[in-house]
Amino acid sequence: MTELWLVGIGTGNPDHVTLEGRAALRDAAAVLIPRKGAGKEDLAHLREAILRAADSNARVIPFDMPVRDESLPYAERVARWHDAIALRWQAALEQAPDGPVALLVWGDPGLYDSTLRIAARLPGAPRVRVVPGITALQALTAAHAIPFNTVNGAVSVTTGRRLREGGWPEGAETAVVMLDGQCSFRALEPAGLRIWWGGFLGMPEQVLESGPLAEAGPRIVETRAAARARHGWIMDTYLLRRA
Amino acid sequence: MTELWLVGIGTGNPDHVTLEGRAALRDAAAVLIPRKGAGKEDLAHLREAILRAADSNARVIPFDMPVRDESLPYAERVARWHDAIALRWQAALEQAPDGPVALLVWGDPGLYDSTLRIAARLPGAPRVRVVPGITALQALTAAHAIPFNTVNGAVSVTTGRRLREGGWPEGAETAVVMLDGQCSFRALEPAGLRIWWGGFLGMPEQVLESGPLAEAGPRIVETRAAARARHGWIMDTYLLRRA
Ligand SMILES: C[S@@+](CC[C@H](N)C(=O)[O-])C[C@H]1O[C@@H](n2cnc3c(N)ncnc32)[C@H](O)[C@@H]1O
Ligand SMILES: C[S@@+](CC[C@H](N)C(=O)[O-])C[C@H]1O[C@@H](n2cnc3c(N)ncnc32)[C@H](O)[C@@H]1O
Repeated sequence: MTELWLVGIGTGNPDHVTLEGRAALRDAAAVLIPRKGAGKEDLAHLREAILRAADSNARVIPFDMPVRDESLPYAERVARWHDAIALRWQAALEQAPDGPVALLVWGDPGLYDSTLRIAARLPGAPRVRVVPGITALQALTAAHAIPFNTVNGAVSVTTGRRLREGGWPEGAETAVVMLDGQCSFRALEPAGLRIWWGGFLGMPEQVLESGPLAEAGPRIVETRAAARARHGWIMDTYLLRRA
Repeated sequence: MTELWLVGIGTGNPDHVTLEGRAALRDAAAVLIPRKGAGKEDLAHLREAILRAADSNARVIPFDMPVRDESLPYAERVARWHDAIALRWQAALEQAPDGPVALLVWGDPGLYDSTLRIAARLPGAPRVRVVPGITALQALTAAHAIPFNTVNGAVSVTTGRRLREGGWPEGAETAVVMLDGQCSFRALEPAGLRIWWGGFLGMPEQVLESGPLAEAGPRIVETRAAARARHGWIMDTYLLRRA
């Protein structure tokens, strides 16, 4: 393998793919595909649709995702899991023809994603090329047609856990929250805050809610639970702003 | 006009355009184009290349950008300027054929950009559709092949002015800085900080620098001044991370 290409594919809408991403998928000699993505059939279909639309002749090399050892403490569990994924990639790469090998990465490869850290574990340190992709944050602000930031304001990009544990990010007019399985906005004093929320952004199932946090918050908790029950899983993110 | 489409075109590389963006430019009835973009010929050429590549048959309607009244205090100056741009858009829209009207927006329309705020000033409140685009932040992290965030860490997206005036954004492991004409990283105590900097990201002139801030900072100041002198203007952004 000469190079590893991490190709951002956007967040569920096959039309989020950039011309650069499409060309990369077309020109790659091989594409590594997890046999079970984040657990969802839908995502496997999305990947196939994107590869087809790119006229890719790359050899598709499937690999199995290892399972996490839930008995380990968090940091170690994640590090071991990344080690194990790197081994699977390595085994898959041994079957690859000469030429660049691509991986399809959800959203942008830089944002709350571990592919760069896993790639750094590969022996022989292949050159890594990153093709930027539309993130869930942009899919969120686009769907609501709202700006990401206030005029000259700061935005804190953070996680559900940090919001729960640390409260409102100091010094920011806006907070955007990812990786939140628990509607952590409930930990905030809602007065003076507005929320814009989105689930399955960019996908046919997209759901949106917004309003003053005090009033929209409980509605989001309900909508989210119902959407999750319907589909068996959910991906959601939200933006909070001081009024 | 039925709808106004704000189409994110990425940050200088015509291949940053998404399939959704390309289809929007193809399907628009008209496209509004500033006769003088942010002052640069190069940007006018980029827009033309993107429209051509999209096989757009949209009627191109040029408009002149108003000038800012530098005698006004900052907030008022900006508000008046946005009012004036909205009037120019309105006049241009009167020449538009029936159907959606598109505007090409640098990067993503939500990120430190005023098009959404200007659109909100249009009479008749046309429906606004936002097509997300690759931002300068993603172009930066992709060019350096680095993650945007540390594992589960928070990122503060901020401006040069705020970094100068407020120092390191409290609670964030990472800060990304835009709209900085003054290398404001010089206002920080460099110990323990790394910087990844990029100018003209995604463009043929792209320049990159990175390293510990103490050592890379002065290099960036020089590289930036030289690149700016060569081209007559510069756009740059950077990411700072606690080691
Ligand atoms: C592991 S991170 C990956 C983010 C991705 N790299 C990106 O650029 O958007 C997954 C988190 O992104 C958000 N997310 C990703 N796709 C989403 C979608 N289609 N709708 C809503 N949220 C999404 C959710 O907050 C989810 O917890
Ligand atoms: C008015 S903001 C617009 C940002 C744009 N909407 C986006 O999504 O990237 C302009 C700032 O973006 C950054 N920027 C935009 N394009 C850039 C490029 N090609 N290279 C480096 N920085 C860029 C610079 O910090 C500049 O001051």
